[in-house]
Amino acid sequence: MNRRHFVLNVICPDRTGIVAELSGFVSAQGGWVDEADFFTDDASGKFFARLAVRTEGLEFEAFKDAFGQSVAEDMEWRMTDTAVAKKSVILVTREGHCLHDLLGRVRSGDYPMDVQCVIGNHEDLRPIAEAYVLPFHFVPFPKDAVGKREAFDKVAAIVDPIEPDAIVLAKFMQILPPDLCEKWAGRAINIHHSFLPSFMGARPYHQAYTRGVKQIGATCHYATTDLDDGPIIEQDVIRVNHKYTPDDLRRIGRDAETLVLARGLRWHLEDRVMVYGNRTVIFN
Amino acid sequence: MNRRHFVLNVICPDRTGIVAELSGFVSAQGGWVDEADFFTDDASGKFFARLAVRTEGLEFEAFKDAFGQSVAEDMEWRMTDTAVAKKSVILVTREGHCLHDLLGRVRSGDYPMDVQCVIGNHEDLRPIAEAYVLPFHFVPFPKDAVGKREAFDKVAAIVDPIEPDAIVLAKFMQILPPDLCEKWAGRAINIHHSFLPSFMGARPYHQAYTRGVKQIGATCHYATTDLDDGPIIEQDVIRVNHKYTPDDLRRIGRDAETLVLARGLRWHLEDRVMVYGNRTVIFN
Amino acid sequence: MNRRHFVLNVICPDRTGIVAELSGFVSAQGGWVDEADFFTDDASGKFFARLAVRTEGLEFEAFKDAFGQSVAEDMEWRMTDTAVAKKSVILVTREGHCLHDLLGRVRSGDYPMDVQCVIGNHEDLRPIAEAYVLPFHFVPFPKDAVGKREAFDKVAAIVDPIEPDAIVLAKFMQILPPDLCEKWAGRAINIHHSFLPSFMGARPYHQAYTRGVKQIGATCHYATTDLDDGPIIEQDVIRVNHKYTPDDLRRIGRDAETLVLARGLRWHLEDRVMVYGNRTVIFN
Amino acid sequence: MNRRHFVLNVICPDRTGIVAELSGFVSAQGGWVDEADFFTDDASGKFFARLAVRTEGLEFEAFKDAFGQSVAEDMEWRMTDTAVAKKSVILVTREGHCLHDLLGRVRSGDYPMDVQCVIGNHEDLRPIAEAYVLPFHFVPFPKDAVGKREAFDKVAAIVDPIEPDAIVLAKFMQILPPDLCEKWAGRAINIHHSFLPSFMGARPYHQAYTRGVKQIGATCHYATTDLDDGPIIEQDVIRVNHKYTPDDLRRIGRDAETLVLARGLRWHLEDRVMVYGNRTVIFN
Repeated sequence: MNRRHFVLNVICPDRTGIVAELSGFVSAQGGWVDEADFFTDDASGKFFARLAVRTEGLEFEAFKDAFGQSVAEDMEWRMTDTAVAKKSVILVTREGHCLHDLLGRVRSGDYPMDVQCVIGNHEDLRPIAEAYVLPFHFVPFPKDAVGKREAFDKVAAIVDPIEPDAIVLAKFMQILPPDLCEKWAGRAINIHHSFLPSFMGARPYHQAYTRGVKQIGATCHYATTDLDDGPIIEQDVIRVNHKYTPDDLRRIGRDAETLVLARGLRWHLEDRVMVYGNRTVIFN
Repeated sequence: MNRRHFVLNVICPDRTGIVAELSGFVSAQGGWVDEADFFTDDASGKFFARLAVRTEGLEFEAFKDAFGQSVAEDMEWRMTDTAVAKKSVILVTREGHCLHDLLGRVRSGDYPMDVQCVIGNHEDLRPIAEAYVLPFHFVPFPKDAVGKREAFDKVAAIVDPIEPDAIVLAKFMQILPPDLCEKWAGRAINIHHSFLPSFMGARPYHQAYTRGVKQIGATCHYATTDLDDGPIIEQDVIRVNHKYTPDDLRRIGRDAETLVLARGLRWHLEDRVMVYGNRTVIFN
Repeated sequence: MNRRHFVLNVICPDRTGIVAELSGFVSAQGGWVDEADFFTDDASGKFFARLAVRTEGLEFEAFKDAFGQSVAEDMEWRMTDTAVAKKSVILVTREGHCLHDLLGRVRSGDYPMDVQCVIGNHEDLRPIAEAYVLPFHFVPFPKDAVGKREAFDKVAAIVDPIEPDAIVLAKFMQILPPDLCEKWAGRAINIHHSFLPSFMGARPYHQAYTRGVKQIGATCHYATTDLDDGPIIEQDVIRVNHKYTPDDLRRIGRDAETLVLARGLRWHLEDRVMVYGNRTVIFN
Repeated sequence: MNRRHFVLNVICPDRTGIVAELSGFVSAQGGWVDEADFFTDDASGKFFARLAVRTEGLEFEAFKDAFGQSVAEDMEWRMTDTAVAKKSVILVTREGHCLHDLLGRVRSGDYPMDVQCVIGNHEDLRPIAEAYVLPFHFVPFPKDAVGKREAFDKVAAIVDPIEPDAIVLAKFMQILPPDLCEKWAGRAINIHHSFLPSFMGARPYHQAYTRGVKQIGATCHYATTDLDDGPIIEQDVIRVNHKYTPDDLRRIGRDAETLVLARGLRWHLEDRVMVYGNRTVIFN
């Protein structure tokens, strides 16, 4: 898995022969396929593919151009090189467990992400960013609509020049405005502190406590204009019992949030996630 | 765990000394406590206890009377003898996996339940009941309100003379009317085919498919007038992925339904479940 | 998933172009691939494929012959038709939970298996088999080596004429002799009552109790001459705690055994399992 | 759970009336029990208790003395004050994920541990310790027996003056000599990178790969002279498949190691773990 690959993702209407076309192309170029995943969604008639091709004897731009020229018109596709680490920006508020965990993974060489900076609407997590020698931008968020809008513009002014592959909402407790959801579609990744669609909205651990559930969870999803309703990448649960107060649920829940974000974001960075409508294909 | 016990459950306002009172009583009677569980709910100030007492040297009625005379006025309590199997009635529609599983457990001597009869609003599962030499009552449910009401009256006329400890809604696809919810409060146990509160209402597997969740679940809960909103006894999930159609989800989900009902119902039968408001204490 | 398919499994040395060859063949025949899974094992240089092809416009024997003629010499392969239910024989001793569960699944139309008969070395489970109108063969197993050998010969004499796709050891508490392991290689499927390789050998629940583990498990694997050491198809665990006696572990463990066997056996029956050395590829 | 408590742990031979004695004592002192857990091990006839008592109106030394004077001779017991954070020393080698995670938890105020220092037999993790302003002691471990013995003496010379409640072997890749196991009995906590007793000894992820298991795990246990065989506090597993190389297993396994150590160590620090023979009672 640590070998360098060119990764090709394709979405197109399903028809006979696509797998043969794709694999025939790679074969004709002298490429060696290490991972090949295909899926057809019967309901929509869409076909999805991910091919990880060994890079020996190939040159990225030439390989990509050749595919662009040979490919059928009905295909949406992208090709990436795993040697180029994906760029990210991490947005936070006060709770640092996800940030702490992600930076630790990156530092250990275990995570295919190049964090460009951390943006916080509070100063609390500056020390964590700085311990990793990362720029920390403090953008305060006033409570009024105008001030909030200006704050988001400042955030966007930091984010957009970076052209990040991932905008990670790592417990960022502000709701993205529609224009940013749109601009960052398929790149803005949120961790929600409940097992969606349970407990959408505010204070999910209090809601979970009140409802008396026996497992709590977390959900990693793409941010969309429908709050808490974007395509789900990953989710998981942890068993709890009647002894847990809302505070206990929040504390225990952090472990789920941390792991679920780390897992889902990794798949995104490895181009294993393909979105269609409100659903995701995960080739892992 | 297979030793015979007298099981005492107590709920009362919390105050100092209750554990000492309860354990002191048992000790004074010469009783030996095998399991002792206590819980105080800070929010409501309620205290909950369950004591499983060895029966050697004790006599049930005398022990129970002694407790009734010594006990403080503010206590709600009940005492049961594990030598007396709990009586149940099982209500079904067409899907037989839960019924099949429960009867198998009872037959193997592994489940503390004495099934008195099976009631179905379709004939489909009669053969399963009869394979276990159990009475099967077919009570057809018309679609109109009056006919439905009459059908429920027929069901109640079968159930109530039995005075069951558990009325098991084992994929019974009819909504209990409020008066039966009330009469059977704390005894009517439903298995819902979703991880509540996700996907309340109809066709939860289609809802789960549409939402693109990565885990599906099942919930065992007491039936109340708030549909799908009764106190949760147990719930669990199973991992799924984008390949699963709604039919696949339904098929896989059956395994969750079967296990979650079997587990939650067992705890109910062993007097391990205590309800307060919309929450449950599970002493297991 | 319930659509009829021709399923093709291939193992061969890895080289470039195999995926293109396989998918090109299907495409040339006018076939439509619904599921395509590929895997290369780097360590051994082996390539594995499974293709599920829609049957519309194809004829099984012709399709299979065409593949046989076109296929490279270095390929091992097989092709099956999902319209033909896989034949099985189930071997049991006294514990009936796996048998009960499997027959329930088959009866509900939810399991792609045609059970030809049940063989027991005790009479205990005859009633379960007969409730499903299945032949039950009682083959007593004496304790001495000669008697045991004769008993196995009797079992083989029942099994072999059936030419089953699966010989299911559903809590069959006898160790297959080497010649049967060999003859039934890749078809004899055992459920072991521990999370292998923990607690190999006898009385795993007692071993688990003594070791004080916090989770117990079950393992579904192909039977080989190395007892408890065959290729693992599936395994899972259940959380336990210090309160569980060995008897409790055995009781709880049955739920793991039942589910793990049902899952692993299904994958085998759907031709999703491919064995190499002591490892399995599971295309699910 | 965040309320201050005096925590009492008791082990003694089981007999009638102990729960009444213990709770009667607390009640007589005017104490209010928030958590009360009891367990009797039938096999050994041992009784275990943990009581968490609110501190309002009580004074620790007086309460403890009173218990010491009133308590039966056959009881082993200890009493601690949750207001006094438990002291720990963390031993590491090169892999930093557990250290990183634990220090993040402590920093966030979410973990009842006062880390006094980190000891490493390599310099690799000094930066992590220093980022948390913690002393880092580098004690190189030569390969020869004499050098190793001297190194352990140096480690002990750092550890022992601290009188730590927990000596955390957070991926410390050296085997404790018997005298340290004995001196630190019940305080030295190891995280082993397998689901024990599977894959004891070296390179468990390679062993797991070779055996083809479908889940890998981690085990948190007390270090004893029987290597990898000490009393288990906690263990958990993560699902894997045939695609995972040994390197992938190691990477994925780190998540299990991190969580299992964090969970098990917390229970130890909260006096929820009681050891008897090779088993643990976990009151959580």
